[in-house]
Amino acid sequence: MQNPVLRKRYRVFKWEKKMTQKQAMTIYEENRRKLLAFRYVNFVTEWDHETEAPAGAIPLEATQQGVLAEMEYRLQTDPVFLEAVELLYEDRNQLDSILAHELEEQHRQIDEMRKIPMEEYTAFREHLAHTYPVYVKAKQQNDYASFAPYLERIITYNRNLTKYLEQPGKTGYDVLLDRFEPGFLKRDYDGFFDLLRRELVPFAAKINASKLEGDFSFGKKTYPREEQIRFCEYLRDVMCVDRNHSVMRESEHPFTTGFGTDDIRITNHYYEDNLPSAIFSAIHESGHGLYMAQVDPTLNDTLSWDGASMAMHESQSRFYENMIGRSPLFWKVHYPKLKETFPEQLRDVPQETFIRYINQSGYSFIRTEADELTYPLHIMLRYEVEKAVVEEGLRAEDIPAFWNERFRDYFGMTPPTDTLGVLQDVHWATGEFGYFPTYALGSAYAAQIYAAMERDLDVEKALASGTTREINEWLREHIHRYGASKYPKEILKLATGEEFDPGYYVDYLVHKFTEVYGV
Amino acid sequence: MQNPVLRKRYRVFKWEKKMTQKQAMTIYEENRRKLLAFRYVNFVTEWDHETEAPAGAIPLEATQQGVLAEMEYRLQTDPVFLEAVELLYEDRNQLDSILAHELEEQHRQIDEMRKIPMEEYTAFREHLAHTYPVYVKAKQQNDYASFAPYLERIITYNRNLTKYLEQPGKTGYDVLLDRFEPGFLKRDYDGFFDLLRRELVPFAAKINASKLEGDFSFGKKTYPREEQIRFCEYLRDVMCVDRNHSVMRESEHPFTTGFGTDDIRITNHYYEDNLPSAIFSAIHESGHGLYMAQVDPTLNDTLSWDGASMAMHESQSRFYENMIGRSPLFWKVHYPKLKETFPEQLRDVPQETFIRYINQSGYSFIRTEADELTYPLHIMLRYEVEKAVVEEGLRAEDIPAFWNERFRDYFGMTPPTDTLGVLQDVHWATGEFGYFPTYALGSAYAAQIYAAMERDLDVEKALASGTTREINEWLREHIHRYGASKYPKEILKLATGEEFDPGYYVDYLVHKFTEVYGV
Repeated sequence: MQNPVLRKRYRVFKWEKKMTQKQAMTIYEENRRKLLAFRYVNFVTEWDHETEAPAGAIPLEATQQGVLAEMEYRLQTDPVFLEAVELLYEDRNQLDSILAHELEEQHRQIDEMRKIPMEEYTAFREHLAHTYPVYVKAKQQNDYASFAPYLERIITYNRNLTKYLEQPGKTGYDVLLDRFEPGFLKRDYDGFFDLLRRELVPFAAKINASKLEGDFSFGKKTYPREEQIRFCEYLRDVMCVDRNHSVMRESEHPFTTGFGTDDIRITNHYYEDNLPSAIFSAIHESGHGLYMAQVDPTLNDTLSWDGASMAMHESQSRFYENMIGRSPLFWKVHYPKLKETFPEQLRDVPQETFIRYINQSGYSFIRTEADELTYPLHIMLRYEVEKAVVEEGLRAEDIPAFWNERFRDYFGMTPPTDTLGVLQDVHWATGEFGYFPTYALGSAYAAQIYAAMERDLDVEKALASGTTREINEWLREHIHRYGASKYPKEILKLATGEEFDPGYYVDYLVHKFTEVYGV
Repeated sequence: MQNPVLRKRYRVFKWEKKMTQKQAMTIYEENRRKLLAFRYVNFVTEWDHETEAPAGAIPLEATQQGVLAEMEYRLQTDPVFLEAVELLYEDRNQLDSILAHELEEQHRQIDEMRKIPMEEYTAFREHLAHTYPVYVKAKQQNDYASFAPYLERIITYNRNLTKYLEQPGKTGYDVLLDRFEPGFLKRDYDGFFDLLRRELVPFAAKINASKLEGDFSFGKKTYPREEQIRFCEYLRDVMCVDRNHSVMRESEHPFTTGFGTDDIRITNHYYEDNLPSAIFSAIHESGHGLYMAQVDPTLNDTLSWDGASMAMHESQSRFYENMIGRSPLFWKVHYPKLKETFPEQLRDVPQETFIRYINQSGYSFIRTEADELTYPLHIMLRYEVEKAVVEEGLRAEDIPAFWNERFRDYFGMTPPTDTLGVLQDVHWATGEFGYFPTYALGSAYAAQIYAAMERDLDVEKALASGTTREINEWLREHIHRYGASKYPKEILKLATGEEFDPGYYVDYLVHKFTEVYGV
């Protein structure tokens, strides 16, 4: 339904032919209030579906979510609103920098919406709906051939996107990359992955050929759910995730969501035969949560709350999980508490053995099961596939051969089935090309950020205090508080004083695994 | 924002001056879809606040809920929608009976909205916001005098309402009563409460003077939370509340909510020193849940899903809780399971002792602590206060004296403080006059329904099967399936073949407590 105030204003514009900046601002703010309310609705309904709603309720509620999405779409595409954004965008240099950035983002989205033909977009969404069940079945039955024609059409759409959205200095695969990590293009990723290929492929092979010393039989013992929850709640306090503004619940796959700095929701999953799983999920998800909670609260009323990008978000979760959570410095302080929680299971396990255990490396066919060292190689492979698809005309039917060959080059083994190879991830089936590379970028950001932090802060001393408070504070000051009010490259530069440099990441990995494996 | 389709249509009407019925129907259905989506939003966000959201998140989210409420209000008051309702309402006899009833309800609400001056309504809502904290403090500090002027203004508003909304045959207090239980007016309630006053006041006095035989010391033992949950989940299955379409969680105060027949959410609260509390909450709330789940599913897409009225809903929860859940027939089947769950605590407790224990009666100052027999007397007292306030000019400052005198008449004791008297309930402080009486009506409906059911069904045999399935089916057929597509009086007549007759209720109570107490 129409807002009578806006209707009146709209008529005024029709007479005058041009909004004033003040009118545009009123309209923009009014619409933003409503868009934020819909963000809240999406946040709560998705949380509800993941954690609470009975399974049988989904179809009826999907209908309501469809109606709400329609209303939200009308808000986003309301012609008066679009006119206001255009006008404010033109004058953005007169506005404060936070609003100017937000308008740039809004403008980018509107521009994209205008350049992609509506019928093509709609047909693509429909195609995706049909593709998903085909993909699921193909993965179950190791039947890539049945999926290939569906994927081919997704590829065509993505290739078309690159034509619709290209600009001087941003062509081909750049266009897709830029949509997921603004400002990171082929030249950035090429440099990054070239380094990984050169340094990490041979290093990982060396590590994989070595044997890690220690009796790791404790890993096969039973760790009761209730005690795991108790220890993970302890970790939440160690990380100072404020209980008044956060909850930790359970779901099939751990995730973090939130609405503004005051409502952070983390889930975990507890396997009684796998202690590290819940521990590192708790730390990883709390890292996402801290990022959300430490955004400058004045951004709660804007569209710039939450992290700056996919990779920047992932950098924070990986930072806590890997750099902090798997470090000897951390377990020196907290291993006694873990032993106290599982006295029986860990009785004869020295701290060093536990630390080696949680830092094992080994080749895996499956990305999501990979360790810290080999993980980026899985991403590198996907980057190469996507680039070849978008820029070199690689066809869907030829991806498995490409995949398996590169996999052998990097891991020295060939996936025995496509289910363990090209079919393992859902991303391409849901239309997402350009997303994967951000997964590797996050860890590289984290290593560079860690190096900058160490110039300001004695991390060992900070951790010895028993909590991560000082580390949180450093991250709040240098990364978190900006939320999404700046682009990731800008924040990285402000935080570290340097441009993106993947050398920190490679150094970190080589140093760490050399030490763990004693090679 | 405006729906372009509607905008176009709206212009058509402006030219033609009158909508066609077909146009009105399109507009009505379009708006109803959106209103249903907002119902879903309200359902999920309220559930989330009661069960999941961290405490510190409330203020930021209240802002979003305010924006959403504003959007919903605009939908409800959109002039084009109102015009469509008017037109369809006039022609309702040509429509199917479900839609006709829905339009009657919509029309009633719109009519009410038009007759209450907007400024007065807004000022009243604002007054309520100021009143609430004053009430809470007054109750805490037993300081009625500080609350009285606030209540006086609420009374004035309610008296004014009766003038704005009166109609031939519906005057004074009738107007307020009708808003909560459509069709039930003073003449109905007067007859009902006169009977209770005449029969139950002396009977309750007799019961209160008797002593119940048995060793009830088991009631003071500890009943661990986990086992209580297990037994309540068992009860959920006994009552056939489908697990695929319902959840049972925890909250401070038990409640039931839902969205359509496919999403029923029940909460409970477990006190380790009070076993009956969780058991009867589980049965009571499952009764509400079954009503929601057994509405004809075609009503999911209308505004007529959910129960027919406050009292009709309460009749179903009380039916299961009291008539079924506290009966010897029920525990003959399920007491062994309870003993199995708490073997230690219930070792020496015979079934008859347990049944007497859960059917004790005793006077209490507090309504929410009252037992099945004395509960309606608490409501009768509130009915008399409200009637005197609305029709006989009783002033806020004089309510405590009125209350205490009647309390002595009915319970033979005087509340030592106003906190234990007139200040105990929040209802009047939140503006609700006319709501309380429905609380007593529900049990009376239940007794009449039970009598009708017994004419069709051997309840003892039905319960002996181990579940309430046959009982559920009878209620589905005779009550539940109608949802809110008919008025409660109509449903009661269809289900029982008779007009409302409170004699069934008095007979049921007298018979039951005579038997339990052996008097």
